Amino acid sequence: MIVLGIDPGIAITGWGIVELLKSKGNLSLVDCGVIATPSYLTLSIRLVDIHHQLQKIIIKYKPKVIAIEELFFFRLTKNILAIAQARGVILLTVALHKIPLFEYNPTVIKLALTGSGNASKLQIQNTVKNILHLKNILKPDDVADALAIGICHINKKFHLNKEIM
Amino acid sequence: MIVLGIDPGIAITGWGIVELLKSKGNLSLVDCGVIATPSYLTLSIRLVDIHHQLQKIIIKYKPKVIAIEELFFFRLTKNILAIAQARGVILLTVALHKIPLFEYNPTVIKLALTGSGNASKLQIQNTVKNILHLKNILKPDDVADALAIGICHINKKFHLNKEIM
Repeated sequence: MIVLGIDPGIAITGWGIVELLKSKGNLSLVDCGVIATPSYLTLSIRLVDIHHQLQKIIIKYKPKVIAIEELFFFRLTKNILAIAQARGVILLTVALHKIPLFEYNPTVIKLALTGSGNASKLQIQNTVKNILHLKNILKPDDVADALAIGICHINKKFHLNKEIM
Repeated sequence: MIVLGIDPGIAITGWGIVELLKSKGNLSLVDCGVIATPSYLTLSIRLVDIHHQLQKIIIKYKPKVIAIEELFFFRLTKNILAIAQARGVILLTVALHKIPLFEYNPTVIKLALTGSGNASKLQIQNTVKNILHLKNILKPDDVADALAIGICHINKKFHLNKEIM
Protein backbone atom coordinates (compact mmCIF):
# COMPACT_ATOMS: atom_id res chain seq x y z
CA MET A 1 0.00 0.00 0.00
CA ILE A 2 1.63 3.21 -1.22
CA VAL A 3 -0.01 6.46 -0.10
CA LEU A 4 0.80 9.98 -1.26
CA GLY A 5 0.01 12.62 1.34
CA ILE A 6 -0.37 16.21 0.17
CA ASP A 7 -0.39 19.46 2.14
CA PRO A 8 -1.70 21.94 -0.45
CA GLY A 9 -0.28 25.44 -0.83
CA ILE A 10 0.42 28.02 -3.51
CA ALA A 11 4.04 28.86 -2.63
CA ILE A 12 4.83 25.43 -1.15
CA THR A 13 2.86 22.21 -1.51
CA GLY A 14 4.34 19.51 0.72
CA TRP A 15 4.19 15.90 -0.45
CA GLY A 16 5.30 12.61 1.01
CA ILE A 17 5.00 8.97 0.02
CA VAL A 18 4.56 6.36 2.73
CA GLU A 19 4.54 2.61 2.22
CA LEU A 20 2.87 0.14 4.53
CA LEU A 21 4.95 -3.02 4.55
CA LYS A 22 2.42 -5.60 5.64
CA SER A 23 5.03 -8.35 5.96
CA LYS A 24 7.00 -6.28 8.42
CA GLY A 25 3.89 -4.55 9.70
CA ASN A 26 5.47 -1.14 9.65
CA LEU A 27 5.53 2.10 7.75
CA SER A 28 8.43 3.45 5.74
CA LEU A 29 9.18 6.71 3.98
CA VAL A 30 9.58 6.23 0.21
CA ASP A 31 10.24 9.84 -0.78
CA CYS A 32 9.09 13.35 0.04
CA GLY A 33 9.61 16.94 -1.04
CA VAL A 34 7.93 20.18 -1.94
CA ILE A 35 6.38 21.63 -5.05
CA ALA A 36 7.54 25.24 -4.81
CA THR A 37 6.39 28.07 -7.06
CA PRO A 38 8.00 31.52 -6.82
CA SER A 39 5.71 34.47 -6.14
CA TYR A 40 6.99 36.52 -9.08
CA LEU A 41 5.15 34.19 -11.44
CA THR A 42 1.49 34.77 -12.30
CA LEU A 43 -1.08 32.66 -10.46
CA SER A 44 -1.89 30.86 -13.75
CA ILE A 45 1.73 29.84 -14.31
CA ARG A 46 2.09 28.72 -10.69
CA LEU A 47 -1.02 26.53 -11.07
CA VAL A 48 0.38 24.97 -14.25
CA ASP A 49 3.65 24.28 -12.40
CA ILE A 50 1.80 22.58 -9.54
CA HIS A 51 -0.20 20.50 -12.04
CA HIS A 52 2.88 19.35 -13.95
CA GLN A 53 5.05 18.65 -10.89
CA LEU A 54 2.27 16.67 -9.21
CA GLN A 55 1.76 14.68 -12.43
CA LYS A 56 5.46 13.75 -12.39
CA ILE A 57 5.23 12.53 -8.78
CA ILE A 58 2.11 10.47 -9.55
CA ILE A 59 3.67 8.92 -12.66
CA LYS A 60 6.95 8.13 -10.85
CA TYR A 61 5.53 6.57 -7.67
CA LYS A 62 2.10 5.34 -8.82
CA PRO A 63 0.41 5.84 -5.42
CA LYS A 64 -2.66 3.67 -4.83
CA VAL A 65 -4.32 6.38 -2.77
CA ILE A 66 -3.88 10.09 -2.23
CA ALA A 67 -4.71 11.78 1.08
CA ILE A 68 -5.10 15.55 1.39
CA GLU A 69 -5.96 18.03 4.11
CA GLU A 70 -9.46 19.48 4.10
CA LEU A 71 -9.73 23.22 3.63
CA PHE A 72 -11.74 25.05 6.23
CA PHE A 73 -13.61 28.29 6.15
CA PHE A 74 -12.39 29.13 9.64
CA ARG A 75 -8.78 28.94 8.56
CA LEU A 76 -8.92 32.36 6.96
CA THR A 77 -5.52 33.67 6.09
CA LYS A 78 -4.46 36.27 3.56
CA ASN A 79 -3.46 33.52 1.14
CA ILE A 80 -6.50 31.30 1.55
CA LEU A 81 -7.98 32.08 -1.88
CA ALA A 82 -4.68 31.33 -3.64
CA ILE A 83 -4.30 28.12 -1.60
CA ALA A 84 -7.85 27.10 -2.50
CA GLN A 85 -7.15 27.67 -6.19
CA ALA A 86 -4.01 25.50 -5.91
CA ARG A 87 -6.03 22.85 -4.07
CA GLY A 88 -8.59 22.84 -6.91
CA VAL A 89 -5.78 22.11 -9.37
CA ILE A 90 -4.45 19.33 -7.10
CA LEU A 91 -7.90 17.69 -6.84
CA LEU A 92 -8.31 17.91 -10.62
CA THR A 93 -4.86 16.41 -11.27
CA VAL A 94 -5.54 13.50 -8.90
CA ALA A 95 -8.99 12.89 -10.41
CA LEU A 96 -7.64 12.95 -13.99
CA HIS A 97 -5.27 10.14 -12.94
CA LYS A 98 -8.25 8.26 -11.45
CA ILE A 99 -6.56 7.79 -8.07
CA PRO A 100 -8.88 7.50 -5.05
CA LEU A 101 -8.71 10.62 -2.87
CA PHE A 102 -9.34 10.85 0.85
CA GLU A 103 -9.68 14.09 2.80
CA TYR A 104 -8.96 14.58 6.49
CA ASN A 105 -9.37 17.63 8.67
CA PRO A 106 -6.52 18.82 10.88
CA THR A 107 -8.13 17.60 14.12
CA VAL A 108 -8.61 14.08 12.75
CA ILE A 109 -4.99 14.04 11.55
CA LYS A 110 -3.68 15.18 14.96
CA LEU A 111 -5.86 12.63 16.75
CA ALA A 112 -4.75 9.78 14.48
CA LEU A 113 -1.08 10.56 15.00
CA THR A 114 -0.85 11.56 18.64
CA GLY A 115 -4.16 10.67 20.27
CA SER A 116 -4.82 14.37 20.89
CA GLY A 117 -6.77 16.69 18.60
CA ASN A 118 -4.85 19.60 20.08
CA ALA A 119 -1.32 18.31 19.42
CA SER A 120 1.26 20.98 18.54
CA LYS A 121 3.09 21.13 15.21
CA LEU A 122 6.23 19.90 16.97
CA GLN A 123 4.41 16.91 18.48
CA ILE A 124 3.13 15.96 15.02
CA GLN A 125 6.59 16.36 13.51
CA ASN A 126 8.12 14.20 16.24
CA THR A 127 5.49 11.52 15.77
CA VAL A 128 6.12 11.46 12.01
CA LYS A 129 9.86 11.16 12.69
CA ASN A 130 9.35 8.25 15.11
CA ILE A 131 6.81 6.33 13.02
CA LEU A 132 9.04 6.53 9.93
CA HIS A 133 12.23 5.76 11.91
CA LEU A 134 13.94 8.97 10.82
CA LYS A 135 16.92 10.56 12.54
CA ASN A 136 15.62 14.11 12.35
CA ILE A 137 12.41 16.04 12.09
CA LEU A 138 11.53 16.66 8.44
CA LYS A 139 11.76 20.19 7.11
CA PRO A 140 10.03 22.28 5.89
CA ASP A 141 6.87 21.82 7.97
CA ASP A 142 4.86 21.25 4.79
CA VAL A 143 6.69 17.95 4.18
CA ALA A 144 6.07 16.67 7.71
CA ASP A 145 2.42 17.76 7.41
CA ALA A 146 2.03 15.91 4.11
CA LEU A 147 3.46 12.72 5.63
CA ALA A 148 1.21 13.14 8.67
CA ILE A 149 -1.79 13.16 6.31
CA GLY A 150 -0.57 10.00 4.56
CA ILE A 151 0.08 8.24 7.89
CA CYS A 152 -3.35 9.33 9.14
CA HIS A 153 -4.97 7.67 6.12
CA ILE A 154 -3.11 4.39 6.60
CA ASN A 155 -3.96 4.37 10.31
CA LYS A 156 -7.66 4.96 9.57
CA LYS A 157 -7.81 2.18 6.99
CA PHE A 158 -5.57 -0.44 8.54
CA HIS A 159 -5.86 0.27 12.25
CA LEU A 160 -2.14 0.16 12.89
CA ASN A 161 -1.23 -1.28 16.22
CA LYS A 162 0.10 0.72 19.15
CA GLU A 163 3.69 -0.35 18.53
CA ILE A 164 3.75 1.33 15.13
CA MET A 165 1.83 4.43 16.10
CA MET B 1 -11.48 39.61 -31.94
CA ILE B 2 -13.31 36.81 -30.10
CA VAL B 3 -13.37 37.04 -26.31
CA LEU B 4 -14.62 34.43 -23.86
CA GLY B 5 -15.87 35.90 -20.59
CA ILE B 6 -16.13 33.62 -17.58
CA ASP B 7 -17.94 34.08 -14.27
CA PRO B 8 -16.47 31.27 -12.16
CA GLY B 9 -18.56 29.16 -9.82
CA ILE B 10 -18.78 25.64 -8.50
CA ALA B 11 -22.51 24.97 -9.11
CA ILE B 12 -22.77 27.34 -12.08
CA THR B 13 -19.97 28.85 -14.13
CA GLY B 14 -21.37 31.39 -16.59
CA TRP B 15 -19.66 31.81 -19.95
CA GLY B 16 -20.22 34.02 -22.95
CA ILE B 17 -18.46 34.64 -26.24
CA VAL B 18 -18.46 38.14 -27.68
CA GLU B 19 -17.10 39.15 -31.05
CA LEU B 20 -15.94 42.63 -31.96
CA LEU B 21 -16.77 43.20 -35.62
CA LYS B 22 -14.30 45.91 -36.54
CA SER B 23 -15.84 46.44 -39.97
CA LYS B 24 -19.22 47.21 -38.45
CA GLY B 25 -17.64 48.59 -35.30
CA ASN B 26 -20.00 46.76 -33.00
CA LEU B 27 -20.20 43.85 -30.65
CA SER B 28 -22.19 40.70 -31.17
CA LEU B 29 -23.04 37.69 -29.06
CA VAL B 30 -21.61 34.48 -30.54
CA ASP B 31 -22.81 32.02 -27.90
CA CYS B 32 -23.27 31.72 -24.16
CA GLY B 33 -24.31 29.25 -21.51
CA VAL B 34 -23.48 27.73 -18.18
CA ILE B 35 -21.26 24.93 -16.98
CA ALA B 36 -23.44 23.40 -14.28
CA THR B 37 -22.35 20.69 -11.85
CA PRO B 38 -24.86 19.09 -9.48
CA SER B 39 -24.10 19.24 -5.77
CA TYR B 40 -24.56 15.50 -5.24
CA LEU B 41 -21.26 14.90 -7.05
CA THR B 42 -17.96 15.04 -5.15
CA LEU B 43 -15.93 18.23 -5.45
CA SER B 44 -13.29 16.31 -7.45
CA ILE B 45 -15.80 15.11 -10.03
CA ARG B 46 -17.33 18.59 -10.30
CA LEU B 47 -13.86 20.05 -10.96
CA VAL B 48 -13.21 17.45 -13.68
CA ASP B 49 -16.58 18.34 -15.25
CA ILE B 50 -15.72 22.04 -15.25
CA HIS B 51 -12.32 21.28 -16.80
CA HIS B 52 -13.79 19.13 -19.58
CA GLN B 53 -16.72 21.40 -20.37
CA LEU B 54 -14.48 24.47 -20.54
CA GLN B 55 -12.06 22.59 -22.81
CA LYS B 56 -14.95 21.85 -25.19
CA ILE B 57 -15.94 25.54 -25.31
CA ILE B 58 -12.33 26.61 -25.94
CA ILE B 59 -11.85 24.02 -28.70
CA LYS B 60 -15.16 24.91 -30.35
CA TYR B 61 -14.86 28.72 -30.36
CA LYS B 62 -11.08 29.24 -30.24
CA PRO B 63 -11.26 32.52 -28.28
CA LYS B 64 -8.23 34.80 -28.72
CA VAL B 65 -8.54 36.07 -25.18
CA ILE B 66 -10.26 34.97 -21.97
CA ALA B 67 -11.50 37.44 -19.36
CA ILE B 68 -12.43 36.37 -15.84
CA GLU B 69 -13.61 38.05 -12.67
CA GLU B 70 -11.06 38.55 -9.91
CA LEU B 71 -11.75 36.77 -6.66
CA PHE B 72 -11.73 38.95 -3.59
CA PHE B 73 -11.11 38.23 0.02
CA PHE B 74 -13.91 40.56 1.03
CA ARG B 75 -16.44 38.56 -0.94
CA LEU B 76 -16.67 35.92 1.74
CA THR B 77 -19.58 33.63 1.23
CA LYS B 78 -20.18 30.11 2.44
CA ASN B 79 -19.15 28.76 -0.94
CA ILE B 80 -16.06 30.89 -1.47
CA LEU B 81 -13.57 28.04 -0.97
CA ALA B 82 -15.38 25.79 -3.45
CA ILE B 83 -15.62 28.69 -5.94
CA ALA B 84 -11.90 29.37 -5.51
CA GLN B 85 -11.08 25.71 -6.19
CA ALA B 86 -13.22 25.85 -9.35
CA ARG B 87 -11.50 29.09 -10.36
CA GLY B 88 -8.09 27.39 -9.96
CA VAL B 89 -9.21 24.67 -12.37
CA ILE B 90 -10.48 27.32 -14.83
CA LEU B 91 -7.16 29.23 -14.72
CA LEU B 92 -5.25 25.97 -15.24
CA THR B 93 -7.45 24.93 -18.18
CA VAL B 94 -7.01 28.33 -19.87
CA ALA B 95 -3.23 28.30 -19.28
CA LEU B 96 -2.86 24.75 -20.65
CA HIS B 97 -4.49 26.03 -23.87
CA LYS B 98 -2.03 28.97 -23.86
CA ILE B 99 -4.77 31.58 -24.21
CA PRO B 100 -4.01 35.03 -22.76
CA LEU B 101 -6.04 35.66 -19.60
CA PHE B 102 -7.18 39.02 -18.24
CA GLU B 103 -8.70 39.55 -14.82
CA TYR B 104 -11.07 42.36 -13.82
CA ASN B 105 -12.54 43.22 -10.48
CA PRO B 106 -16.29 43.82 -10.13
CA THR B 107 -15.95 47.60 -9.75
CA VAL B 108 -13.89 47.90 -12.93
CA ILE B 109 -16.45 45.78 -14.81
CA LYS B 110 -19.37 47.91 -13.57
CA LEU B 111 -17.52 51.12 -14.44
CA ALA B 112 -16.62 49.89 -17.94
CA LEU B 113 -20.22 48.93 -18.70
CA THR B 114 -22.28 51.65 -17.08
CA GLY B 115 -19.90 54.42 -16.06
CA SER B 116 -20.71 53.72 -12.39
CA GLY B 117 -18.76 51.43 -10.08
CA ASN B 118 -21.92 51.03 -8.01
CA ALA B 119 -24.24 49.85 -10.80
CA SER B 120 -26.86 47.29 -9.78
CA LYS B 121 -27.03 43.77 -11.22
CA LEU B 122 -30.10 44.83 -13.22
CA GLN B 123 -28.30 47.84 -14.70
CA ILE B 124 -25.43 45.59 -15.80
CA GLN B 125 -27.85 43.07 -17.30
CA ASN B 126 -29.69 45.81 -19.19
CA THR B 127 -26.43 47.23 -20.50
CA VAL B 128 -25.33 43.78 -21.70
CA LYS B 129 -28.72 43.35 -23.41
CA ASN B 130 -28.46 46.74 -25.17
CA ILE B 131 -24.82 46.43 -26.26
CA LEU B 132 -25.43 42.99 -27.75
CA HIS B 133 -28.78 44.02 -29.33
CA LEU B 134 -30.71 41.31 -27.51
CA LYS B 135 -34.47 41.29 -27.01
CA ASN B 136 -34.36 40.16 -23.39
CA ILE B 137 -32.10 40.16 -20.39
CA LEU B 138 -29.96 37.02 -20.34
CA LYS B 139 -30.66 34.43 -17.68
CA PRO B 140 -29.27 33.10 -15.40
CA ASP B 141 -27.34 36.05 -13.95
CA ASP B 142 -24.09 34.11 -14.33
CA VAL B 143 -24.39 34.29 -18.15
CA ALA B 144 -25.00 38.05 -18.16
CA ASP B 145 -22.09 38.48 -15.72
CA ALA B 146 -19.78 36.43 -17.94
CA LEU B 147 -20.69 38.55 -20.98
CA ALA B 148 -20.22 41.73 -18.94
CA ILE B 149 -16.65 40.59 -18.19
CA GLY B 150 -15.98 39.91 -21.88
CA ILE B 151 -17.45 43.28 -22.91
CA CYS B 152 -15.39 44.99 -20.19
CA HIS B 153 -12.22 43.51 -21.66
CA ILE B 154 -13.03 44.61 -25.20
CA ASN B 155 -13.88 48.10 -24.00
CA LYS B 156 -10.60 48.37 -22.06
CA LYS B 157 -8.52 47.23 -25.03
CA PHE B 158 -10.33 48.90 -27.91
CA HIS B 159 -11.90 51.96 -26.31
CA LEU B 160 -15.31 51.41 -27.83
CA ASN B 161 -17.11 54.58 -28.73
CA LYS B 162 -20.11 55.95 -26.88
CA GLU B 163 -22.57 54.73 -29.47
CA ILE B 164 -21.63 51.11 -28.83
CA MET B 165 -21.38 51.37 -25.07
